[in-house]
Amino acid sequence: MTFKTLSTAALSGVMLAGMAGVALAQDAAPAVSPETAYIFNTLLFLVGGFLVMWMAAGFAMLEAGLVRSKNVSMQCLKNIGLYSVAGIMYWIVGYNLMYTGVDGGYFGSFGPYSFDPVGGNALDTGYSTASDWFFQMVFVATAASIVSGTLAERIKLLPFMIFTVILTGFIYPIAGSWKWGAGWLDAMGFQDFAGSTLVHSVGGWCALTGALILGARKGKYVDGKVQPMPGSSIPLATLGTFILWLGWFGFNGASQLAMGTINDVSDVSRIFANTNLAAAGGVVAVMILMPLIYGKVDVTMVLNGALAGLVSITAEPLNPSPFLSIVIGAVGGIIVVFAVPAIDKLKIDDVVGAIPVHLLAGIWGTFIVPLSNADASYGVQIIGILAYGVLTVVVSAVIWLILKAVMGIRVSAEEEAIGLDKAEVGVEAYPEFTAAGTRF
Amino acid sequence: MTFKTLSTAALSGVMLAGMAGVALAQDAAPAVSPETAYIFNTLLFLVGGFLVMWMAAGFAMLEAGLVRSKNVSMQCLKNIGLYSVAGIMYWIVGYNLMYTGVDGGYFGSFGPYSFDPVGGNALDTGYSTASDWFFQMVFVATAASIVSGTLAERIKLLPFMIFTVILTGFIYPIAGSWKWGAGWLDAMGFQDFAGSTLVHSVGGWCALTGALILGARKGKYVDGKVQPMPGSSIPLATLGTFILWLGWFGFNGASQLAMGTINDVSDVSRIFANTNLAAAGGVVAVMILMPLIYGKVDVTMVLNGALAGLVSITAEPLNPSPFLSIVIGAVGGIIVVFAVPAIDKLKIDDVVGAIPVHLLAGIWGTFIVPLSNADASYGVQIIGILAYGVLTVVVSAVIWLILKAVMGIRVSAEEEAIGLDKAEVGVEAYPEFTAAGTRF
Amino acid sequence: MTFKTLSTAALSGVMLAGMAGVALAQDAAPAVSPETAYIFNTLLFLVGGFLVMWMAAGFAMLEAGLVRSKNVSMQCLKNIGLYSVAGIMYWIVGYNLMYTGVDGGYFGSFGPYSFDPVGGNALDTGYSTASDWFFQMVFVATAASIVSGTLAERIKLLPFMIFTVILTGFIYPIAGSWKWGAGWLDAMGFQDFAGSTLVHSVGGWCALTGALILGARKGKYVDGKVQPMPGSSIPLATLGTFILWLGWFGFNGASQLAMGTINDVSDVSRIFANTNLAAAGGVVAVMILMPLIYGKVDVTMVLNGALAGLVSITAEPLNPSPFLSIVIGAVGGIIVVFAVPAIDKLKIDDVVGAIPVHLLAGIWGTFIVPLSNADASYGVQIIGILAYGVLTVVVSAVIWLILKAVMGIRVSAEEEAIGLDKAEVGVEAYPEFTAAGTRF
Repeated sequence: MTFKTLSTAALSGVMLAGMAGVALAQDAAPAVSPETAYIFNTLLFLVGGFLVMWMAAGFAMLEAGLVRSKNVSMQCLKNIGLYSVAGIMYWIVGYNLMYTGVDGGYFGSFGPYSFDPVGGNALDTGYSTASDWFFQMVFVATAASIVSGTLAERIKLLPFMIFTVILTGFIYPIAGSWKWGAGWLDAMGFQDFAGSTLVHSVGGWCALTGALILGARKGKYVDGKVQPMPGSSIPLATLGTFILWLGWFGFNGASQLAMGTINDVSDVSRIFANTNLAAAGGVVAVMILMPLIYGKVDVTMVLNGALAGLVSITAEPLNPSPFLSIVIGAVGGIIVVFAVPAIDKLKIDDVVGAIPVHLLAGIWGTFIVPLSNADASYGVQIIGILAYGVLTVVVSAVIWLILKAVMGIRVSAEEEAIGLDKAEVGVEAYPEFTAAGTRF
Repeated sequence: MTFKTLSTAALSGVMLAGMAGVALAQDAAPAVSPETAYIFNTLLFLVGGFLVMWMAAGFAMLEAGLVRSKNVSMQCLKNIGLYSVAGIMYWIVGYNLMYTGVDGGYFGSFGPYSFDPVGGNALDTGYSTASDWFFQMVFVATAASIVSGTLAERIKLLPFMIFTVILTGFIYPIAGSWKWGAGWLDAMGFQDFAGSTLVHSVGGWCALTGALILGARKGKYVDGKVQPMPGSSIPLATLGTFILWLGWFGFNGASQLAMGTINDVSDVSRIFANTNLAAAGGVVAVMILMPLIYGKVDVTMVLNGALAGLVSITAEPLNPSPFLSIVIGAVGGIIVVFAVPAIDKLKIDDVVGAIPVHLLAGIWGTFIVPLSNADASYGVQIIGILAYGVLTVVVSAVIWLILKAVMGIRVSAEEEAIGLDKAEVGVEAYPEFTAAGTRF
Repeated sequence: MTFKTLSTAALSGVMLAGMAGVALAQDAAPAVSPETAYIFNTLLFLVGGFLVMWMAAGFAMLEAGLVRSKNVSMQCLKNIGLYSVAGIMYWIVGYNLMYTGVDGGYFGSFGPYSFDPVGGNALDTGYSTASDWFFQMVFVATAASIVSGTLAERIKLLPFMIFTVILTGFIYPIAGSWKWGAGWLDAMGFQDFAGSTLVHSVGGWCALTGALILGARKGKYVDGKVQPMPGSSIPLATLGTFILWLGWFGFNGASQLAMGTINDVSDVSRIFANTNLAAAGGVVAVMILMPLIYGKVDVTMVLNGALAGLVSITAEPLNPSPFLSIVIGAVGGIIVVFAVPAIDKLKIDDVVGAIPVHLLAGIWGTFIVPLSNADASYGVQIIGILAYGVLTVVVSAVIWLILKAVMGIRVSAEEEAIGLDKAEVGVEAYPEFTAAGTRF
C-alpha cells in the first residue's frame, strides 16, 4: 500500500507497454491497455472501498452486542457519528496531510482534497483520484472505530467526538504519512501492507491511552476481583465479526492498489485466500485453547480470535504461504486468549477487547513481516512499531488530558449507572425487553 | 440515468472508436474495446444491482427496529414480500411500461420483458439486457419499501400487498417512464440522476396518501399530545441505516450506467465520494442541531439524517463539489430535525419518518440540481416535482380508497392492540423477551 | 460449474483468439485480450467468493433467530467455527481431493493446495488459482452450515466440529469430484450448475442422517403432538435470509466461472435475474398458500420459501425462461409448506427447516434441469440424485455412529434443559432479556 510503488513501478510499466508498444520481459502486461487497467484499478478501489465502509457497520454491531443494553444506543450513535466525521475530516485536511508532498518527511500539506473534474482524470494517474480518496477515507474510520469500543459505557459523547475529529483529521493522517505517504519510515524500509500498525495499532494506542486516563467502569474491579459485565447480544457481536471479516477482503485485498495486470489481480487473490486462512487460524486456535484452559468455549473470545487473526495478517497478507498465514493468525488468536485476562489484571477496562485484538495483534503482525518478506528487517519493523507507539501515545494522551481538563471526558456516576442511552441519547435501545431494570 | 444518453452518446462513441478504429477527440476511449466496455458496463449493473438489492434488507431492519415488538414479524414479512412482488411485477409488465417505446410520451408498452437468449446479447446494446433489468428491478423495490415503513403497525397485510402489486407494476413504471424512459419530462429537460423524485418522492407520496387515508395508530395523538411509541431495537435500526448507506453506492454509482471508459469510471468514483459526503453531512448536521434544540442526541434522528442526506444527493450526485455535497446532505438532515415534529403536529402518523426522509429530502435534492448542473433549470425541476406529486397522490389515493371500500385497509382496534404479529402472522418476533406483555 | 468445460472450451477459445490472432466464428471474443479476460474471470471469483463467504453470516443469523435464546450463542459459535474449519480443511486436503486428477473416477489426489507464486499465475489457466480456491472454499462452508441448523439445540460442540472436519475435508470434496471434478457422474452427463445436489442436498442428507441418529429435542414430540418451540428472533432470521439471498448471486452467478467474454457476462446476468425470480416465486407461493391453508402467513415459512426457491434454481439458473424460473422457485416454496409439517409428523426434528429447504428443494431443482437444458436427461439426473444420497447417507451415518459410540453426540438432558449456551459456551446470548427464565 505504498503509492510510490504503484505509480513508479507497476503502473508505469503498464503505461509504457500500452502507450509505446514496448515489449516487456513480462509478456502479460502489454495486452491490457492503459485505459482498461485504469478502469480495473479504479474498480478495485471502489469495491474494496465499499467493503471497508461496511466495516463501520461491523464495528457498530460488534460494540452494540458487547456492551450492556443501557449503553447500546450510544454505541450505535458513536459509530455512525465517527464514520461521518472521519469522512468529512479526511476530505477537509486528512488526505493531503497524509499523501501530498510528504517526500521522506513527517507530514504532508494542509487543505481540502480536490477531486478531478467531472468527465474523468488524466489517464497517467492510473486510477480515478476520487476512488483513491474514497478507499483511503474508509480506512481512517476503522482507526476511529477501535477507540469507540474500548472506551464504551462511560465516556461522554462530546469529548469522544472531538477526539474523533482530531484523530481522523490529524493523528491518523500524520502517522500514515510516515509510511504510506512515502515519509521517513517508508524511506527506512518499514513494511506495513494494509495497516496492522498504521490503522490497527494506531487505533489501539489511542484506545489504551484513553482507557488509562478515563479509568474503568464503576464496579468493574472491586476488591481485586474482576466483575463480569456481559454483552447484551451475542448474535449482534457475531454479526459484527462476520461483517468485519467480509470487509477485510477489501481492506487487505484492495491494498494491492492495482488489478490491471494478471500479476496484480493474482496477488489480490492470494491476499483474499491468506486473509481468510489467518482469520480461520485465529478462530481454530481459540477454539482449541479455550476448552483446555477453561473447559468452555467463550464465543466472544472466538470472535476476537477471528479479528486478531485478521489484524495479524494485515501487515503482510501477500507473501506468506497458506500454512504460514494460518500460523500467523493462530498466534493472533492465542494472544487474545492470554491478553484479555492479563489486561483485566492490570485494571485496564477494555470493554470489547480492542487492545489485544488491534494493538497487540497489530504489533505481532507487523513484527513478523520479515519472515516472509525479504524487503523487511526485524530492526526496522521494531523501529516502526515503537515510532508509531510513541507518536500516538504522546499525542493522544495530550488530547485526552486537555479534553479532561476543559470539559471532562467521563459521565457522572449517576449517568453511568442509568446508562448513556438515557443520559445522553434519550433513546433506549430495547425499551420493551429490559423494562424490569438492568441486571448488571 | 437516462438510457437515451447512454446508448446514443457515450456508448456509440466507444463502438465507433473500437470497431472502426476512428480516432476520437477524447483520446482515452478507443483503447477499451467495445467487448471490454460491454463487460464493464454489465458488471456495473450487476454489482450496483446486488448493492441495491441489499437495501431491501436495510429497509427490513430499519423498520423492524423502529416498530414496537408486537409488529416486528409483520414488517419482516412485508419487506420480503414486497421485494418479491416487485421483482415479479417488474418482469411481467413494469420494465416495458417504463422503458419500451415511451418516446416523449406518458408510458411505454405492455407485456413481459424478454431477456436476450443464453449465450449473450448483441454487442451494440453495450451491456447485457438482463443486467439492466436486474438493476432497474431493485429500484422499484426501494420505492415500495418506503410505503411499508410509514404505514406500519395498523395496515392489513392483504391490501398492502395489493397496493404493492399496483405500485411496482404500474405506478412506479409509468412515473419512471416520464423521465428515465425518455418521456415528456425528459424531453422538457427535467433532471433526476438516480431518483430523488422518481424513486424516493414517488414512494413518499404514496406513503403520505396512505397515512392520511389510513389514519394514525390508536393512542398516538391524544388530547392534542403526541404519545411516543419507541422502536423495539435501536441496533437493528442502525444496522438498517448502514445497509442502506452501503446500498446507496450502487443506487447512485451504478446510475452512471456505464464504466467502460476512464471518464465513466471516474464519474462513478466521484459519485461514490459525493454520496458518502452528503450522508456524512446529514449525520453531522443532526448531531449538532439536536443537542442545541433538545439537549440530547436522539439516535433515530441521526439515522434519519444520514438517510435524508443520501436522498438529497441522489438527484445529482455527480456535479456538486465535495463541499456542496456536504451542504446538500446537511440541509437534508436539518429538514428531518424540523419536519418530524411538524408532521406529528399535523397528526400524520409516519412510523419510521419516511415522509421527511424520502419525500421532503427528495424534493429538496431535486430542486437544488440546477445549482451544480447547467443542464437543469429551477422552473423545470419544479414542474417535475409537481407533476410527480400530482400523479402519485391522485393515483395512489384512488387505489387506497378503492381498497378501503372493497376490503378495508385497517386492522380492527383489537388486532392493533395485540399487534399484527399475533393477528395476521401468527409468529411473535421475540417470544421470550416480551413475555410479560408489551409496555407500549 | 465444470472446470473441464471452462478450461477446454470457452477459455481456450479466448486464448487462441487472443494469442494467435485466429478469427473465431463468434466474433465478439477476440477483442478481449487474454490478459483482460483473465482479470475479469479472476474478479468474478473474488466478488462471487466474498458474496458466498457472506452466506456464512446469513446461516449464523438465520439459525440464531430460529433457535431459542438459550442456544443462540452456541449457534453463533458453531457457524463461525465451521466456516473456519472448512477453510483450513479445504486447503489441507479438500481442494485437491475434489479437483486434481479425478479424471472420470471417484476422487482426486491427497495433499494441500499450492497457490501460484506471488507475482501471478501462468496466463493460460485463464484465472488466478488462488481466486478459484477461494471461490470453491466458500461453497464447502455452505454445505456444513446446513447441518448446523438441523441439529441445533441438542448436539454437543466437539462431535459436531469433528463431523465438520470430515465433511469439509473429505465427504464434500469426494462427492463434489464426481461432477465438478470431472468424475464419473460428469462423464455420464449429470448436470448441476451451482450445486442444488452437490452442495445443498449433500448438506441436507448429512443433516437428515444426523437428525435420525441424534433424536429429537426433549419435549418436541409428546403424546403424538408436536410442541412448537418458536425461534427467539424473527428479525435476525429475516436478516439471515436476506444475506443468503444476496450471497446467492455469487453462488449461482459466479458459477458461470468466467466473464471475460460478452457471452459469459451476459449469462451471469441472466443467472442473477433468474435466481432473483425463483426466490421471489418461492416467497409469493408461500404467501398465497399459507393463508388459504392456515389463515395466517407464518413468516418463517415465507423465509424458508425464499430459500427453497433459491435452492431449486441452483441446479440450472441459466437456461430457464423468467417464467419458468418463477415456477421452479414457486414449487420449491410449495414443497416447504407441505414438507415442514410432514417431517414433523415423522418425528424428525429439523430445527430450522433445512431438510425441506436444502434436501428436498435440492432434489426438485436437480430433477427438473432437463426441462430447460437439452444436455441433461431425467434418467441421469435421477442416477445422480440417488448416487449422492447413497454416498452421503452411508458415509455420514457411519461417522455419526462412530462419534456417538466414542464420545457421545448429545448433551445430557439437564444440559439440554438449561441450554447449550450455559452448558458448553459459558456465555448467555441475551443475559439481560431472559433473566426471568426461559419460557419454552
